[in-house]
Amino acid sequence: MSDKSSQALVVFTPSGKRGRFPVGTPLLKCARNLGVDIDTVCGGRGLCGRCQVTVGEGEFAKHGIVSRKENVSEWSSVEARYQAKKGMKPERRLSCQAMLQGDTVIDVPAESQVHKQVVRKRAEVRNIELDPAIRLHYVEVEQPDMHNPTGDLERLLKALETQWGLTDLTAELRVLQGLQQALRASDWKVTVAVHRGQVLTTIWPGFRDKAYGLAVDVGSTTIAAHLCDLATGEVLASNGIMNPQIRFGEDLMSRVSYIMMNPGGDNEMTEAVRDGINRLVQEICGEAGLMPQDILNATFVGNPIMHHLLLGIDPTELGGAPFALTFNSGITLWAEQLGIDLAPDARVYVLPCIAGHVGADTAGVILSEQPHLRDETTLVVDVGTNAEIVLGNRHRLLACSSPTGPAFEGAQISGGQRAAPGAIERVRIDPETLEPRFKVIGCESWSDETSFTEEVRRIGVTGICGSGIIEVLAEMFLAGIILPDGTVNGRKAAQSTRVFMEGRTFSYLLHEPVNPEEPRIVITQNDIRAIQLAKAALFAGIRLLMERLGVDHVDRIQLAGAFGSHIDVKYAMILGMLPDCDLDKVSSAGNAAGTGARIALLNQKTRDEIERVVRRVEKVETAVEPAFQKHFVEAMAIPHKNLLYPSLSQVVSLPVPEPEGLSPLEGDQPRRRRRRAS
Amino acid sequence: MSDKSSQALVVFTPSGKRGRFPVGTPLLKCARNLGVDIDTVCGGRGLCGRCQVTVGEGEFAKHGIVSRKENVSEWSSVEARYQAKKGMKPERRLSCQAMLQGDTVIDVPAESQVHKQVVRKRAEVRNIELDPAIRLHYVEVEQPDMHNPTGDLERLLKALETQWGLTDLTAELRVLQGLQQALRASDWKVTVAVHRGQVLTTIWPGFRDKAYGLAVDVGSTTIAAHLCDLATGEVLASNGIMNPQIRFGEDLMSRVSYIMMNPGGDNEMTEAVRDGINRLVQEICGEAGLMPQDILNATFVGNPIMHHLLLGIDPTELGGAPFALTFNSGITLWAEQLGIDLAPDARVYVLPCIAGHVGADTAGVILSEQPHLRDETTLVVDVGTNAEIVLGNRHRLLACSSPTGPAFEGAQISGGQRAAPGAIERVRIDPETLEPRFKVIGCESWSDETSFTEEVRRIGVTGICGSGIIEVLAEMFLAGIILPDGTVNGRKAAQSTRVFMEGRTFSYLLHEPVNPEEPRIVITQNDIRAIQLAKAALFAGIRLLMERLGVDHVDRIQLAGAFGSHIDVKYAMILGMLPDCDLDKVSSAGNAAGTGARIALLNQKTRDEIERVVRRVEKVETAVEPAFQKHFVEAMAIPHKNLLYPSLSQVVSLPVPEPEGLSPLEGDQPRRRRRRAS
Repeated sequence: MSDKSSQALVVFTPSGKRGRFPVGTPLLKCARNLGVDIDTVCGGRGLCGRCQVTVGEGEFAKHGIVSRKENVSEWSSVEARYQAKKGMKPERRLSCQAMLQGDTVIDVPAESQVHKQVVRKRAEVRNIELDPAIRLHYVEVEQPDMHNPTGDLERLLKALETQWGLTDLTAELRVLQGLQQALRASDWKVTVAVHRGQVLTTIWPGFRDKAYGLAVDVGSTTIAAHLCDLATGEVLASNGIMNPQIRFGEDLMSRVSYIMMNPGGDNEMTEAVRDGINRLVQEICGEAGLMPQDILNATFVGNPIMHHLLLGIDPTELGGAPFALTFNSGITLWAEQLGIDLAPDARVYVLPCIAGHVGADTAGVILSEQPHLRDETTLVVDVGTNAEIVLGNRHRLLACSSPTGPAFEGAQISGGQRAAPGAIERVRIDPETLEPRFKVIGCESWSDETSFTEEVRRIGVTGICGSGIIEVLAEMFLAGIILPDGTVNGRKAAQSTRVFMEGRTFSYLLHEPVNPEEPRIVITQNDIRAIQLAKAALFAGIRLLMERLGVDHVDRIQLAGAFGSHIDVKYAMILGMLPDCDLDKVSSAGNAAGTGARIALLNQKTRDEIERVVRRVEKVETAVEPAFQKHFVEAMAIPHKNLLYPSLSQVVSLPVPEPEGLSPLEGDQPRRRRRRAS
Repeated sequence: MSDKSSQALVVFTPSGKRGRFPVGTPLLKCARNLGVDIDTVCGGRGLCGRCQVTVGEGEFAKHGIVSRKENVSEWSSVEARYQAKKGMKPERRLSCQAMLQGDTVIDVPAESQVHKQVVRKRAEVRNIELDPAIRLHYVEVEQPDMHNPTGDLERLLKALETQWGLTDLTAELRVLQGLQQALRASDWKVTVAVHRGQVLTTIWPGFRDKAYGLAVDVGSTTIAAHLCDLATGEVLASNGIMNPQIRFGEDLMSRVSYIMMNPGGDNEMTEAVRDGINRLVQEICGEAGLMPQDILNATFVGNPIMHHLLLGIDPTELGGAPFALTFNSGITLWAEQLGIDLAPDARVYVLPCIAGHVGADTAGVILSEQPHLRDETTLVVDVGTNAEIVLGNRHRLLACSSPTGPAFEGAQISGGQRAAPGAIERVRIDPETLEPRFKVIGCESWSDETSFTEEVRRIGVTGICGSGIIEVLAEMFLAGIILPDGTVNGRKAAQSTRVFMEGRTFSYLLHEPVNPEEPRIVITQNDIRAIQLAKAALFAGIRLLMERLGVDHVDRIQLAGAFGSHIDVKYAMILGMLPDCDLDKVSSAGNAAGTGARIALLNQKTRDEIERVVRRVEKVETAVEPAFQKHFVEAMAIPHKNLLYPSLSQVVSLPVPEPEGLSPLEGDQPRRRRRRAS
């Protein structure tokens, strides 16, 4: 089929790139010539097996080729050796060894591509294109020649230029210190790790094709990490530990207070978090059968205070106005500078913080959820002690933080507790009888099922966690037990003994214990007020951003973080934590901050991308926005004083608001109301 | 005189740059606008006093201006404050404060220029243009604004951009760690040190205008350092210590052997040299009243083995063929990486090595002597255990090393010793009587002066040092005691009892001791052979380079190093150590390697310059050059077997060579001679 007997046509799929090459040209060479994406670490020496392809068999009408296995050279001894040593599917060929003999269609499987896609579990998000900051390159280096003396490094760099096209590289001192031995230990064949195409960070004698990286999310409560194979993007192990800083204070503000009152406290906390990370590294490496020295690259996210403490920067300034960050760009360092024991010259990249209360964790969330790449307006909310809020689309992106306090995490709630076995996490209330039924973490049955009593005996019913509180309050609201202004409707006491007076307000009995060790779980007026304050703060922040962006509707809501993973978004919306939105467009993003760290680990270009995005994010400081207070007061009502929830109303029948009266809460703000009314 | 009443003409001398500016413009602003070189650290705030100028008084016909002190605004309160605090010559003005009022001639004194010249002591070399790698900049930083939140670093960088035109700076982690405190401790006014216009390496609260640097020459025997003021280029203190590595071996090869025979020996020696440098830093800082933490930058030179050991690189490969360097480029590191205690983020620059035997010390020599910038062909020789030889001009530059051995330093010589009190350093021999007279280090008189006996009693005559050996041999040759083939002329025994037979050869008695503790100093045939071998090796290297360059004559000879400082070049030439050259064009360059380190310290561009030069130096490895052996044999004769010394002959009457005979030495090489003859 070829025009010239000495040339043959090759078509690579899926790219469709095609060209004619002399018979006898290795397929890898054809691919490189055409710019087809085929991976290799060994540079075509049949060692790494990364360049595997499949030769098409049959008539490919689309390409006008009858492709035959015989149109490629026979199985070579190098391929036989690779097959014997590492195994290879029978239809596969090493493209560096197989040579073009006639017209062929060559398929490059996904795993043979340099920029292979790392598939994410969630359908709505983009896959990660693999492009790690660390690449391995196997090279054969010229031996020294006394007639033309040059340094070993210079010959290595020349080899990297001619064999890999890498230019302007520099080398770490430690690479220099080990260079001569490495070259001579392996007959002048070495593998080097190159960081971002610029710096030689490691050298090994001989061939090596495994490089590992770590993505770490430093939360105030938990430090979580993923250990990844940088060649495949695969997560080899994931693990988390409690942040050892907890001994200095549960929440961020108590940690900052500790520093203010204890000189040197910042150093103690820096040491604590770094020690914790080192322990986590040990554990996670153990799980994957690796050593910390195998990790060549790491990425970190965390809120501003965790970020500063990790870097050994006193976060005191973040504890009070004007909440000035030390810096708001990303930073690349040696792991050693952070006292983290990875490979000796491992590099770490810490994602940028955005503003005093909007940290590198939010930068990670943005990388994961990509609101800046979409036409639709996306709201991303990460609920913690501070809610970090991002709103926008491809044109504009805004971010703020809102001081929700810890109520959503079960603190400040009479029966509240962390999400742990024994905690009530789901609640339904019969609007007729006002009888509740609920589910407890660690127990499959609902409380009204017969199996429940047996099942729950072991763990007990110990309290109510964040998602349970959201649900019970929303159900109480739907059942008319809570009025739109947040007061418990005392008239319902006539309907059920579960509604009862305590002091000057009413409460709702959710669970009467079956044994004396268990607590009685009651929803009090104070509990409702705590949640109202928290959700009003969250919503006021969201409204502020919506107002700035000039929208009264969002197309899509992503809930990031552990809290977002557990709550039922419908209930969150009933309570007015979130603006109205098509419920199909509201979902949990899981640990999006950690995913962002993983994206930055696996694709170096996203580091530049997030720095660019963070620079153009419009940072809104709720503390100095006059409108915040107004939005806050309006958002105290359930679901909201003024706003309607048309999308939600199609799914849930919301109580008809009673005529506006002087509720106790609104009575606290008479002048403000009057001013607005005038 | 001005055309418009609102504008005035200003001429700056010595640059002659001129321009019109609105009346009231500060002189510094006029200067910057015109590109006139005026220094400032405080950026025009009247703090640093670097921008002083003198207002011309009188008629300047050349410029067409009648300049008057009154044509500049009156003495300001800022100038009064500066004058009171730091003092200023009465005619001087701070150009940042003094404003143009009418046409004026403004003189910028040398010390007010950024690129001021550091004057070198030797007339024939270029001054150093001051342009240190570390520059200090005083800036006033905007305070954080909650309405437009940015990091403190980003506001500092913005200030450095708007106030100093510095862009794309990054900051060391330690700068970030101290940033917030520094800014707040001094009302948002700080001084930063910027390395090579790229990295913030230090931050201080408030104003600071002193930065210091250290230039270090790591010799195998001595480590010498200059402590410099980076603002003026002034050497504040100089000092040297013995290289503590001497305990592992006197010369380079014995140190490499130690490493080969003692695993970990390289680490011991690295530690030893670094410890030595740290002690030297302590001492030199003490002399200058500074702390090691005040040193922000350092440069290092040293031969390849010292270079590798300083960097913590095992130098074993340099101990044997093919003498491969680990790398042959310059390197910038943190002082911390070398375990050297300077300022926490001090940077060090280590000059490039050239080849396996031609080190960063030679790179320093090139920077100092600048053969690559001259039309004349310069020969630079640094004599040590290996002689490092550089030859060339602005078109081509060649370098090699020749294994002279330690004879020139007094080793392998029967009465030889280091240059120290008691060593004979100068010798004259009466050609008639063959009686010698000599001078001893530490004693002013010659040995034939009456004061000598009294003066020398305290120190004694303990031996003969390198320069003394050169002189005694040259004088013996001139007196006919040594024949051109290097044998002691036994016939002279008849003329003087100082020539006497010892075994099968003759010796010359230089000094008969006056007391029994002193040694008898005799020049033996073996001593002469040792020097012949050394000088033949040196000259063969020189000849090899001359042959490569295609010249049979050099225009200029620079002798670098301690040995070069002490020898009388005339005698070196008589012995044939050097090629013939106009003696006026032969001089000592002193510690040119150390000077090169100082140049690289004071002028950052010379670092790039030397790297470029080193890349294009043609490296000649004497060990693999077939011609080397021929040149070596020919150079055994005194002054040389074939070459004439026309320039030298004009100054010294050289003995007429006897007809070529079969000298004992040449008898060792009969086959080679026969082959050449055929």
